[in-house]
Amino acid sequence: MPGKQVLKDIQRLGLKKGRAESGRFLAEGPKVVKELLLAIPDAVESVYALPEWMAVHPDLVARHQVHPVTEAELARISQLQTPNQVLLVARQLPARVPQARPGRWILYLDAIQDPGNLGTILRIADWFGIGDLVCGAGCAELYNPKVGQSTMASIARVNVWYDEDGQWLGQQQVPLVAAALDGIPLQNFDGKEGGILLIGNESKGLQPALLEKATHKVTIPRIGAAESLNAAVATGIILSRLC
Amino acid sequence: MPGKQVLKDIQRLGLKKGRAESGRFLAEGPKVVKELLLAIPDAVESVYALPEWMAVHPDLVARHQVHPVTEAELARISQLQTPNQVLLVARQLPARVPQARPGRWILYLDAIQDPGNLGTILRIADWFGIGDLVCGAGCAELYNPKVGQSTMASIARVNVWYDEDGQWLGQQQVPLVAAALDGIPLQNFDGKEGGILLIGNESKGLQPALLEKATHKVTIPRIGAAESLNAAVATGIILSRLC
Repeated sequence: MPGKQVLKDIQRLGLKKGRAESGRFLAEGPKVVKELLLAIPDAVESVYALPEWMAVHPDLVARHQVHPVTEAELARISQLQTPNQVLLVARQLPARVPQARPGRWILYLDAIQDPGNLGTILRIADWFGIGDLVCGAGCAELYNPKVGQSTMASIARVNVWYDEDGQWLGQQQVPLVAAALDGIPLQNFDGKEGGILLIGNESKGLQPALLEKATHKVTIPRIGAAESLNAAVATGIILSRLC
Repeated sequence: MPGKQVLKDIQRLGLKKGRAESGRFLAEGPKVVKELLLAIPDAVESVYALPEWMAVHPDLVARHQVHPVTEAELARISQLQTPNQVLLVARQLPARVPQARPGRWILYLDAIQDPGNLGTILRIADWFGIGDLVCGAGCAELYNPKVGQSTMASIARVNVWYDEDGQWLGQQQVPLVAAALDGIPLQNFDGKEGGILLIGNESKGLQPALLEKATHKVTIPRIGAAESLNAAVATGIILSRLC
C-alpha cells in the first residue's frame, strides 16, 4: 500500500489545482484504465488495483507497475462515490500548437463548461479524424475526471490546445465557420477547403466577438420546434457533413 | 402554503412509483417551468414559487394557480440540491399508439437507460420533426426529472410510447433501420420511404433480437479511431440525413 504522502498526492489530483501543479491526472474504473494503459502506456506512472482486477489482467500487470490495494484503501484515493476496482495516475499529455492546413478541419470550442460535454465532443472529434481540438475561453478542464468518463482513449489521439485569450484564433487565416441559428443550411456548405469550426456554449451560443470573426455561418436545418440542439449533438451533425 | 398532505403528495412525485400511481410529474426551475406553462398549460395543476419569481412573471401568475412559498418551503418539496425559484406539478400527457406512414420516420430506442440521454434524444426528435418516439425494453422513465432538464417542452410535441414487451414493434410492416457498426454508409441509404430507426444502448448497442428484425443497417462512417459515438450524437447524425 502507498505511504501517507503518496496517498495525499493522489487525493490532490481530485482537484484542478492539484492536477495543474503536478502535471498529472487520475482515471478510474476497469474500462477507462484499460483503454489508457493501451493508448498511453508511457504516460502512466502507477496503477492501484484490487486483487480481483489484477487476477483477470495478468497481461497489464506484467507490463505496468500495479500496486495491490484493499477496498478501504481504494476508497480513500478514489474520486468516485462507488470506487471501481482500479485507479491510475498518469502524466498529462504534451499539447502542441495546432497548425491549420488546407482541406483539414480544426474544432474550436467557446465556453463548453460541462466536462461531460467536452468529453463527448472529444470522442466525436476522434471518430471523425479531427486531429486538433482547441478550447477557447471558459471551457472545462481536459483532465477533469468527468471528461475522461466520456472520452477514454480519445485523449491520446486528439491534440487538445487551450486558447483562453483567443490569441491563437486571432492569427488564423483559414475559413472560420460558425455553428449558428441564422447561417446557410449545412448541406449547402462545401467543406472541402477545410478551416476552423466554431462551436458555442449551449445556452448562450457563440459569443458576439467570435460570431463577428466568422467568415461563414452554417445552420442545421430545423424541421420541428425544439429551441436548440445539445452542443455535442450539433458538433456531431456538422462534422458528419464536413469530414 | 400547501398543507401537510399536499406536501407529502408532491414529495412522492420525486419517486418513479409516486409518479406512476398518481399519473403526475414534477418540473423545476424558471426555464423548464416557463416552457411547460406555455407548452402544456392545460396539464399543469399547480405552481409553487418564491415571491421574486412571481414578481417578474405577472402574466404567468395571472393565468395559472401559483402558490407563493418561502425558500424553506420550496426546499422541502424540491428534488434539486439547490432549489431554483419555482416548481410545477402537472398531469402526465396522454400517449397514443404510433402509426407508421410512408415517408415518415419513427424513432425506436432500445435500453436507453440514462435519463439525460433520453431527454437529449427527445429534443433531437423534436428538432427534426419526428412525431413519435418509442421506448423499447429497459429505457429510462419519461417523467424522471432528469429527462425534463434536457428536454423541456419537447415533451409536449413528441408522442412518447412505451413498448416494453416489443409487441408494437412486432406488428410493424415498414422498413426497420438499425444503427449499427457494420451497416452501409449512412449517406448511401435513401431514407425517402420512411420507417423506424432503431437506436441501441450505448455500451451494448442493439440487442441481437432487434438486429435480426432489422431490414436495413446503416453506419456513420468512421474516419478516426474512437470506439463508438454517444447514442444521442449518433441519433442526431442519422436523423440529420434521414429527415
